Amino acid sequence: MTGADARRHLLGVALGEAGADLLASGGDVVNVYTGEVVRWDVAVVDGRIAAVGPDLSGLAGPATERLDARGKVLVPGFFDGHTHLDVLVALPELLREAIPRGLTALVTEMVQVTSALGVAGARWFLDTLEAQPIHAYATAPTISYLAAEARPGEVPLDAAAMGALLDDPRVLGLGEVYWHRLVPEPDRLLPLIDRARALGKSVEGHTAGARGPRLVACAAAGLGSCHEPITAAEALERLRLGLRVMIREGSVRRDLEAVLEVRRTGISLRRATLASDGIWPPDLLAHGYMDGIVQRAIDLGLPPVTAFQMASLNAAEHFGLDGEIGGIAPGRWADFLVLPALRTVRPEAVVARGRVVAREGRCLVACPDVPLPPGVDAGPRPGPLDPDSFRLAAAGPHPRARVIRIAGDIVTAEAEATLPVRDGAVRADPTSDLLLAAVCDRRGGRHRGLGIVQGFGLREGAVGSTLSFDTADLVLVGASREALAAAGQRAIELGGGFVVVDGAGTVRAELPLPLGGVASAASMPELARGLEAVAGALRELGSPLARPLLTLQTLTFSAIPALRLTTRGLLAVKRRAHVPTLL
Amino acid sequence: MTGADARRHLLGVALGEAGADLLASGGDVVNVYTGEVVRWDVAVVDGRIAAVGPDLSGLAGPATERLDARGKVLVPGFFDGHTHLDVLVALPELLREAIPRGLTALVTEMVQVTSALGVAGARWFLDTLEAQPIHAYATAPTISYLAAEARPGEVPLDAAAMGALLDDPRVLGLGEVYWHRLVPEPDRLLPLIDRARALGKSVEGHTAGARGPRLVACAAAGLGSCHEPITAAEALERLRLGLRVMIREGSVRRDLEAVLEVRRTGISLRRATLASDGIWPPDLLAHGYMDGIVQRAIDLGLPPVTAFQMASLNAAEHFGLDGEIGGIAPGRWADFLVLPALRTVRPEAVVARGRVVAREGRCLVACPDVPLPPGVDAGPRPGPLDPDSFRLAAAGPHPRARVIRIAGDIVTAEAEATLPVRDGAVRADPTSDLLLAAVCDRRGGRHRGLGIVQGFGLREGAVGSTLSFDTADLVLVGASREALAAAGQRAIELGGGFVVVDGAGTVRAELPLPLGGVASAASMPELARGLEAVAGALRELGSPLARPLLTLQTLTFSAIPALRLTTRGLLAVKRRAHVPTLL
Repeated sequence: MTGADARRHLLGVALGEAGADLLASGGDVVNVYTGEVVRWDVAVVDGRIAAVGPDLSGLAGPATERLDARGKVLVPGFFDGHTHLDVLVALPELLREAIPRGLTALVTEMVQVTSALGVAGARWFLDTLEAQPIHAYATAPTISYLAAEARPGEVPLDAAAMGALLDDPRVLGLGEVYWHRLVPEPDRLLPLIDRARALGKSVEGHTAGARGPRLVACAAAGLGSCHEPITAAEALERLRLGLRVMIREGSVRRDLEAVLEVRRTGISLRRATLASDGIWPPDLLAHGYMDGIVQRAIDLGLPPVTAFQMASLNAAEHFGLDGEIGGIAPGRWADFLVLPALRTVRPEAVVARGRVVAREGRCLVACPDVPLPPGVDAGPRPGPLDPDSFRLAAAGPHPRARVIRIAGDIVTAEAEATLPVRDGAVRADPTSDLLLAAVCDRRGGRHRGLGIVQGFGLREGAVGSTLSFDTADLVLVGASREALAAAGQRAIELGGGFVVVDGAGTVRAELPLPLGGVASAASMPELARGLEAVAGALRELGSPLARPLLTLQTLTFSAIPALRLTTRGLLAVKRRAHVPTLL
Repeated sequence: MTGADARRHLLGVALGEAGADLLASGGDVVNVYTGEVVRWDVAVVDGRIAAVGPDLSGLAGPATERLDARGKVLVPGFFDGHTHLDVLVALPELLREAIPRGLTALVTEMVQVTSALGVAGARWFLDTLEAQPIHAYATAPTISYLAAEARPGEVPLDAAAMGALLDDPRVLGLGEVYWHRLVPEPDRLLPLIDRARALGKSVEGHTAGARGPRLVACAAAGLGSCHEPITAAEALERLRLGLRVMIREGSVRRDLEAVLEVRRTGISLRRATLASDGIWPPDLLAHGYMDGIVQRAIDLGLPPVTAFQMASLNAAEHFGLDGEIGGIAPGRWADFLVLPALRTVRPEAVVARGRVVAREGRCLVACPDVPLPPGVDAGPRPGPLDPDSFRLAAAGPHPRARVIRIAGDIVTAEAEATLPVRDGAVRADPTSDLLLAAVCDRRGGRHRGLGIVQGFGLREGAVGSTLSFDTADLVLVGASREALAAAGQRAIELGGGFVVVDGAGTVRAELPLPLGGVASAASMPELARGLEAVAGALRELGSPLARPLLTLQTLTFSAIPALRLTTRGLLAVKRRAHVPTLL
């Protein structure tokens, strides 16, 4: 039932002319509109809230499902307004774990799936979002568009295709726009920004580190949000400029504690939201998802009602959805959580679109898989690869090289080193922790980037990943050309995934990512075990890194300092210039 | 300059690559996003804000206009989110007075112009809105649609025409939906509500007096706002239901003082706005417009920043315009006011779309008139009228009649009385304050309503108005059939307007309303004098009413208790039934 008929039914139930489908009674309802907690019943029909009020027992009929909420707290379902759910985990698998933790709405980037599978893959991903039992939307993948522009002929995603994605009703806005691309090259991005705005859609910003005039310029040009503040001062500067701030607490970074200090200024947080910017299986299973973020915000001293507003209404307003979701009120979709107490963010029941979709941490509904349509270019095909694929010819016996030095989970620094040579080509030097790295175009294009990495710490062997920021190319790090070739070739055989090989080329751990080489088809617990096996194999081979797969995937990530490796070679991020590996 | 080029220019100015058009420097800026006051410069180009910041002197070029705001306070221009500016005053004349008082955005109903001039008149009104130097929008006239439905063949405004109006980009939502029509007849209104929602547009509600299940039902059916709360409790109930509350302080009612008591509950007012629901010339000239409302809110104890939020950002968010207007931030239209102090709402300068449009109460820009296109049915033609037009045949010598008793400016009560007879027809009895009343179809349809009014107080003569709620019919009240005919005939000769005649049929005062019989073409001061002359003539003829023209215009107003007169005769509002005048 849709449209006017659905509204007719809601109105009738509100007036007591027909029975509700579901009646949650006696709970303390967090009213995100007024900021109060009100003792209310909530009556639901056709997936939406028909009525709220102190006593709605008269709206229950013989077929009405009862939800006894006495002594409990009802809050709006959680809305993650900026995340990356097209990567690593198959979306339905993630939702099976995320929904019991209170997620009822999301807006995800779709950069990886688009970079890997093109527009057909993006449409498949949108179909998958639409099939889910919660409100799942996407943003158009600006990053894929920028990556495609840099690689003419390799990745098919032009401005017209982006425009068509923006027009799709399942796409709520333009995906994150890097300020460091917008400011120097506005003409590439402003037509898309303007189109999104003209459609009444959001424009998400990525203004990491920007301040002063350049940040102001981003706001002037039409960016509407930023999820990158890592300090209270950065959040305050953005909110003052009219940007919505999405405070990030996820797998890539945890900024909540630092950013929430902004509350000590006494400013209004009505235009701030809580978001994950992506959550990975082990983190989700260990620390929760939006439930964990909201709990942490409360534990850090944020008033609970404010935290719930930031996880619901504020995000809904940002996307112009507050007439549909984001609060417990008549006419809205019935998306709410039953919590044991105001400060205990552990959903005992989750209601989404009017159905009890989870109880006590168990998901009770199907999160459908949508098969990849035939003809979608599924697997990465960068090969065939052999040791010669990774030959970096040395001019003399003691070549000096620019080195990507690992300086944190995802941050690198630029260094220099002298490397050994074999057969006229550069060799790795594991004793000095100088390893070979390579990025191979997933579509088999002629460009292949070769570099030197310090800090990865493998004594032998190699690791490969067909999941990489933001291009979904095959990225490899290892102690020899032979090991790189073995790991890369195995990743291709798997149809994409993570592979660890030892010095003999024997596979020590592997994790297939059959969905375009960027996402698994396994359940979350299986996947978490698989990821731990890969990380364990890397530790056994000597890597001291805390999160080696993240570090590997972000070797290619051109938005963060300082030196990155792409299919076109080394990229000096701040100078926006490719530079040779050998000096 | 539009679209991406305009954004390119804004970005360039923000980065100092080109000079600003206007630089307001050194002011204390009210930041409606954070709720702070910040010492900032504001740089403007192409009508929009390019930059804000502590020192933007570097953005000024030789051609930059300077606005010294040191010691002053800058606030966002005021946004009246619910008003009726299609009535009485020509819109451009009103804006000439309203803009110097800080109005830079409005959403108006267009019920009168549509009821009077049909869809062609509505389109002309939209053209007039679009031609103005501020952001002027409308809502689709639900009330006209309901009135037209009740009078098949007379007024051409069907659902298709309403749908076409809703599609117009200058129409931001569906105009006020009477709850007392929606609840019993949802099928008439739900398709329009659903269409507005599907377009992402607002649905304005009119839920005067509704509470409990019927109010809940209205929210469930899709109403998004209400401007009718007259108590704090009513405002609280609506806000809790997710309805936006527009707190009204205007010519029809002044609810601010009572409703603002809601702040003592400590609830968030982020979803409450300040609105006029219509302002008439004498009120505007005497007490101001949005400036007066905001000033009064502050004087009543509302924190100034909250008051400014309620007059700008909150309304912009309601209409999904907060990326465009509603705050002083980069990328938004440069709509702001220079005030002498935070608590002194007397704009010394008004900037709209980047231009200084008023200084010290004087309007500096043209507010263009748009001529009525040829073919628009301009004047009311209910005649010809003669005394026999108002014959109410009496069955016996002492007929009993239902009487509309005036019980307030716009409220009536139902009474009964025995009336004298002449030539077999009911006579007025001025000594008992029992007067004849008539409503004549402005299009000359055969239906004509005749009734008896008590409380108007004319000793002799009659008064007529072609401006009437919500139908724009000719409404007359007087002491004899002859006087009714004289007043009515003169109103027709004028092409519409207000007319007062004495017992001899001589015109004692008149005020033409050449724009369809519902609006004047005169300036606001002229119009105020004309209205005072009409009211003075009515006082001389004995009327004790405080606002006799309002009472006259609302005799036909079918949304307010208890007994009303329409072209189909007496209407018992609560019973939604026409009832005979003679018992």
